[in-house]
Amino acid sequence: MIYVAIMGYGTIGSGVAEILDKNREELKAAAGQEVALKYVLDLRDFPGTPVEDKIIHDFQIIEQDPEVQVVVETMGGLNPAYPFVKACLMAGKHVATSNKALVAAYGTELLQIARERRVNFFFEGSVGGGIPIIRPMYRCLKGEKIREITGILNGTTNFILSKMDKEGTSFEAALKEAQDLGYAERNPEADVEGHDTCRKIAILTSVATGCEVNYEDIYTEGITRITDVDFKYAEKLGASVKLFGSSRIGDGQVHAWVAPVMIGKQHPLYAVSDVFNGIMIKGNMVGDLMFYGSGAGKLQTASAVVADIVEAAQNLDCNVVPSWSNKRLEIADVDTACHRYFVRIAGTIAEKEAAVKDIFGSVEMVCLDQEPEFALLTQVMSEAVFKEKAVAFDRSCQAAGEAGILQMIRAEL
Amino acid sequence: MIYVAIMGYGTIGSGVAEILDKNREELKAAAGQEVALKYVLDLRDFPGTPVEDKIIHDFQIIEQDPEVQVVVETMGGLNPAYPFVKACLMAGKHVATSNKALVAAYGTELLQIARERRVNFFFEGSVGGGIPIIRPMYRCLKGEKIREITGILNGTTNFILSKMDKEGTSFEAALKEAQDLGYAERNPEADVEGHDTCRKIAILTSVATGCEVNYEDIYTEGITRITDVDFKYAEKLGASVKLFGSSRIGDGQVHAWVAPVMIGKQHPLYAVSDVFNGIMIKGNMVGDLMFYGSGAGKLQTASAVVADIVEAAQNLDCNVVPSWSNKRLEIADVDTACHRYFVRIAGTIAEKEAAVKDIFGSVEMVCLDQEPEFALLTQVMSEAVFKEKAVAFDRSCQAAGEAGILQMIRAEL
Repeated sequence: MIYVAIMGYGTIGSGVAEILDKNREELKAAAGQEVALKYVLDLRDFPGTPVEDKIIHDFQIIEQDPEVQVVVETMGGLNPAYPFVKACLMAGKHVATSNKALVAAYGTELLQIARERRVNFFFEGSVGGGIPIIRPMYRCLKGEKIREITGILNGTTNFILSKMDKEGTSFEAALKEAQDLGYAERNPEADVEGHDTCRKIAILTSVATGCEVNYEDIYTEGITRITDVDFKYAEKLGASVKLFGSSRIGDGQVHAWVAPVMIGKQHPLYAVSDVFNGIMIKGNMVGDLMFYGSGAGKLQTASAVVADIVEAAQNLDCNVVPSWSNKRLEIADVDTACHRYFVRIAGTIAEKEAAVKDIFGSVEMVCLDQEPEFALLTQVMSEAVFKEKAVAFDRSCQAAGEAGILQMIRAEL
Repeated sequence: MIYVAIMGYGTIGSGVAEILDKNREELKAAAGQEVALKYVLDLRDFPGTPVEDKIIHDFQIIEQDPEVQVVVETMGGLNPAYPFVKACLMAGKHVATSNKALVAAYGTELLQIARERRVNFFFEGSVGGGIPIIRPMYRCLKGEKIREITGILNGTTNFILSKMDKEGTSFEAALKEAQDLGYAERNPEADVEGHDTCRKIAILTSVATGCEVNYEDIYTEGITRITDVDFKYAEKLGASVKLFGSSRIGDGQVHAWVAPVMIGKQHPLYAVSDVFNGIMIKGNMVGDLMFYGSGAGKLQTASAVVADIVEAAQNLDCNVVPSWSNKRLEIADVDTACHRYFVRIAGTIAEKEAAVKDIFGSVEMVCLDQEPEFALLTQVMSEAVFKEKAVAFDRSCQAAGEAGILQMIRAEL
């Protein structure tokens, strides 16, 4: 019998308890012995629920019970998640967490403690909800040089952008609907400003490179400035706008950034809509792979945590989890990243074509009916070069007493 | 140092040799020691290639060399692949194969021998080319009840159907192009009649259920009767036609079949085009997952075989591979499987509407300009019920001296 404790009986924690109960037989077969829930640590009581007799309020009961071999951390946040998880690992217990903030902030240290104590610190549920992604990276792709990881990693922003795409609504209206449906929080900043995606791409980049990534080094841009007009152009271009977290891993240089990107129908992530997540991985031998599924949701994320429990149960005496060193990965300046750029410009093509061609060179141009503006798609160039050209273009417009660039979205078209 | 032997230096075997060379550092880090190619068994010599000094023609050299711990089987076919693989396992060597025919025909026995000898019989490359799918099923989803596996598992047929969809070509013309490009063999029967897909869905069903599946029990229909006219209707319906291998795993009953299916844009597999493969897995907790990548290709499939070598190297002394028992899984009669049906009928809606409604009940109808026919989409019903209705409908047409049903394609719309 393997005893599990759950710390934090919120959405995901209660989902883990539910799966341990409902898929008892499958788990027993996979783990080689029965997997039983012993404690649920929470500040609250849950009278009348199946876990009411397992609720405890004192963390030390878990820490000091040698019968508990696997601890699930689904509290979220850093405090007390961090000291509790650290104490569990120090006490020789395996830990499975869905807490991306914890992994992004303290993963290096917690993985090292796990290694030293010959236990495992698992975090499949911290990225991509129910999608198996961390484990395939270290179980299936270890013989590959990973060249790129690009993901739609946040269900809330993907719901908002999908809504804007399909229904032509504004960002504000789509956000409100996401909040009304419970997909977005009242304070949506962590999602819509890209911070959640940033932590997730930092974790994936660490797993791929074996180095620590400071998520604060990752250029992060959210979706708050994307408008319904942008989607009108996207439609005309057979494209959509998605929030990407991306790492491009070259031999000498790693770029990592979070930003909305305009992509076409041929992109493997184009069809990832609503609250779904999709993660594309490019290996030097295997080419493009894509993993798709529910990026959030109670049972989906809990399923990923339960997969961690199974792997812990199968490896009670050894450290099998992928790890990364405390060597800090240097993330290249975002100004050196290269893209195409979708640019909206005030005025008409007739008025501005000469200046556009003079400054941006060869571009594709597109206009909407009845809008006093047009858009262009540049060739591929670095962000630094684009910024220079944009400044020069705006200056030429100002000199003529006219408005210039209204919007820029990176494009992979 | 871990020594590997490759049996069969064709496309995939030479790809494995190439990856062992090019990704040497990654493999050493993943395996914990250097992975070196010692022998290449082939009938031919390969003078001037990097493996020329490793070529052998006598299998017994591999069988009897205790230094060789991992053997790669990329010969294809059953003879001599089957006796060679069996002998390797009996000799206590791990085997990694990309040979779906071998796994579908002898998997049960080979897995059992591997278990008894405490080695592993790995076959990631036998399904889905480079897509990690077998390993995620046993490493990540063992705590799930798998309810459904549906895949586009054959790149050749997917290329043909994609071509027909995008360019309106006939089956024959698309097949010819696939042959000219080297995607389809001169004798394309194994692909276009669905036999290849059948073996692959049999393997996935065995992994999911832990039971032996006789691939001959799986109803298998290919794509040879799909026409350009079907795709005209599909376009009008916002749909496409894909060759699915599918298992639907209920608590008391398992359906498994291979057939072309008309699917809409919202289906996770809709965007899987050309030679790509996609596999959807539905778990009782995790919901829908989709795995996407190159379903064939030298380095892609070789990458899957190399992942097997890595897992063998990490588990030299234990049997970790998923296994299935020799308990034969009973596949339910395909007549009890339920679908919607897309049906093309000769004549006009005006002429036939009364008979359609009388026999098929509530349906959606659609017609093409300038075609002396129309189509309908039925409600969901079993194949047995559909067949009865189809016979009744054709009989009513014959009675009126008219042609009846021209085509039926299962539909998930």
